[in-house]
Amino acid sequence: MAEKKAKVRLYVDAPLGSAQSVTLGRNQAHYLFSVMRLGVGDMVALFNGRDGEWLAEIGRAARREGQLQCLRQSARQMMPPDLWLLFAPIKKARTDFIVEKAAEMGVARIQPVQTRFTNAERIRQERLQAHAIEAAEQCGGTFVPPVMSLRPLGQVLDEWPGDRRIMFCDEAKVGARVALEGACAGPWAVLIGPEGGFSPDERRRLHAMAQATPVSLGPRILRADTAAVAAMTLWQLTLGDWK
Amino acid sequence: MAEKKAKVRLYVDAPLGSAQSVTLGRNQAHYLFSVMRLGVGDMVALFNGRDGEWLAEIGRAARREGQLQCLRQSARQMMPPDLWLLFAPIKKARTDFIVEKAAEMGVARIQPVQTRFTNAERIRQERLQAHAIEAAEQCGGTFVPPVMSLRPLGQVLDEWPGDRRIMFCDEAKVGARVALEGACAGPWAVLIGPEGGFSPDERRRLHAMAQATPVSLGPRILRADTAAVAAMTLWQLTLGDWK
Repeated sequence: MAEKKAKVRLYVDAPLGSAQSVTLGRNQAHYLFSVMRLGVGDMVALFNGRDGEWLAEIGRAARREGQLQCLRQSARQMMPPDLWLLFAPIKKARTDFIVEKAAEMGVARIQPVQTRFTNAERIRQERLQAHAIEAAEQCGGTFVPPVMSLRPLGQVLDEWPGDRRIMFCDEAKVGARVALEGACAGPWAVLIGPEGGFSPDERRRLHAMAQATPVSLGPRILRADTAAVAAMTLWQLTLGDWK
Repeated sequence: MAEKKAKVRLYVDAPLGSAQSVTLGRNQAHYLFSVMRLGVGDMVALFNGRDGEWLAEIGRAARREGQLQCLRQSARQMMPPDLWLLFAPIKKARTDFIVEKAAEMGVARIQPVQTRFTNAERIRQERLQAHAIEAAEQCGGTFVPPVMSLRPLGQVLDEWPGDRRIMFCDEAKVGARVALEGACAGPWAVLIGPEGGFSPDERRRLHAMAQATPVSLGPRILRADTAAVAAMTLWQLTLGDWK
């Protein structure tokens, strides 16, 4: 008998491995058994961000919980390059979008930052983390970047690791993809400013940092969400794992 | 007295030029005078996709119409490179997003195509065109790419111009930004397949076209809207006006 295929990919916290059994809580049981209408014997693809993807069979399907049994690894764990995305939160839908795209395109960490001209005073961190998980579930990813809590940019820069480079998108600067040519891989971050741009102080500080490289994204004004995707593309193509 | 600044950018059909007067219809009058609460003497930045951006003063503000007078050109016309975006329409919000991003990033034409695995049977062309206009209004663009009507991919390829190259994103192919290195500028198109990918026939046909170049966008599966932004970034950085 041919093995059944998994119609659903699910992120879980539990360890995954040969003959490992996984218990589901209320929300995931509801999703699998009531929303997706799966039942005992059906297959689900599980991943937890560290053990790759495992094909698992549903062994128990109750209303508020369930159990699955790992059968075999169906994809190896793929870690992203050591790239952080720092961005200033904007309107809700566009912030969701940035987090989704970062998870899809392959970053190691998502760090929302408050800048001088950032509108948002707070973010809904759990909601954004759920978006990152959903993006990984839907795109076949095996890694989910953690969404950190919102912090002031100045504070993040105060504690900035000496060996982590920053590529920041500077509207004032013209024409330079060359900025990254010749740069080395290793720990990096992409920093996207808010729609209003960086303040003069912030720009001065960034330009003065040895780790920082200003980069232009063309002659047009891009929205922050577009700039985020374009900057991650540029980095992945030049220094990341899209090469 | 210092010249007032324009708080609003507006796309109009009318010709723009020195001392040119522009008449507004009901919708735009409503937007300027009721929604944005502008009145006689206020400034608006106008563009029409060909004459650059003009600072214009409101001379008459009625409920259902209005009149503006061009004062001076405030930005030169900036045309995009000769790049077409071909894409298979997906869910509404993501299709809107692709059109918005294409207008923002600088393409000359947006051509929705039906492929074998495209879900959408039709698009709301006027709505998508309005999205492209809004993106240009908000991002300071002076050009609005036309959104063409939905056509079958096969038909579009039947009439494909011999001198226009196509970069298409092929999931099956691995690792190649190099694909574009050494390529020449000139007329190009970026083709983004549907979420289900191209059919075997479509792939065969594309690979057989002398004008077509397959390109990989990294080891992860990207959604169609992410792939569109990433592919336009790649093209703009390599062959377009972001160099």
